[in-house]
Amino acid sequence: MTAAVANRATVSTPGDRDIHIERLLNAPRGRVWRALNDADQIAQWWGRGNKMTIEKHEPWRGGHWRYVEHSDHGDQGFEGRYREVTPEERMVRTFEWDGMPAHVIIETMTLEDLGDGRTKVVIDSLFHTREERDGMLQSGMEGGMNESFDALDRLLAEA
Amino acid sequence: MTAAVANRATVSTPGDRDIHIERLLNAPRGRVWRALNDADQIAQWWGRGNKMTIEKHEPWRGGHWRYVEHSDHGDQGFEGRYREVTPEERMVRTFEWDGMPAHVIIETMTLEDLGDGRTKVVIDSLFHTREERDGMLQSGMEGGMNESFDALDRLLAEA
Repeated sequence: MTAAVANRATVSTPGDRDIHIERLLNAPRGRVWRALNDADQIAQWWGRGNKMTIEKHEPWRGGHWRYVEHSDHGDQGFEGRYREVTPEERMVRTFEWDGMPAHVIIETMTLEDLGDGRTKVVIDSLFHTREERDGMLQSGMEGGMNESFDALDRLLAEA
Repeated sequence: MTAAVANRATVSTPGDRDIHIERLLNAPRGRVWRALNDADQIAQWWGRGNKMTIEKHEPWRGGHWRYVEHSDHGDQGFEGRYREVTPEERMVRTFEWDGMPAHVIIETMTLEDLGDGRTKVVIDSLFHTREERDGMLQSGMEGGMNESFDALDRLLAEA
């Protein structure tokens, strides 16, 4: 049996304009997919304890999404549009942060069923320029992402 | 005096992922800026005779835009978000066509006042991948663009 420890995400940069992330989760693929794609569940982990408003959530080809995180430091809006949604397997969408409008990341997320009750999440982010990619790496993205994954671990452990 | 002939746009590909367009217009820069950025005026040239619905038009940093062109072949939606708007000088925005959702072009448009009543429009489009750029070049984009510029010429000649 696998201990329900928090797994750290691995972050690498295979090319000039991308970031590759892998993270293990202690839940089967269907459960992970729902946590990542149901509006109510997204609101429980994305904000790492901060209140979230899911303003728009249309997880299908051509649909839009927009989430706002509320914190003591103000509101942070994120949004984009879906290119592809293949349930439990793969999702491709754009990702923008209101603080840098029209700087767009193409995010490809795949879920790999490890067959032992765990799931590997792989996220490939492609930026328009190397400068935007490097800016993201220097923004403290990794700390925030790990906090979100830890909150996701807690949500997955509940159900 | 400059004859009010239709000028052809020049199209080049300075790099792997971009398209560079230049086009002369027979009107001063302030007039051209209004034709390119006022919703009512956009509706008069973008569709080259086809009816347009300007669903959203927020030409400021962080604002969104969405235009729908109606034709006998159906509706074509285009949308994006503004990164920068410097009136009469420069505009940077994203550009997406509904037919390829979440395939995003970064469009930088600058207007150069030629001082003789004419204005040079320069549009640099940066694609996420070379494949997307090549697909756009092969889509008949240039013909449609020239028709739009010709319609813009007619609008500018009116006022």
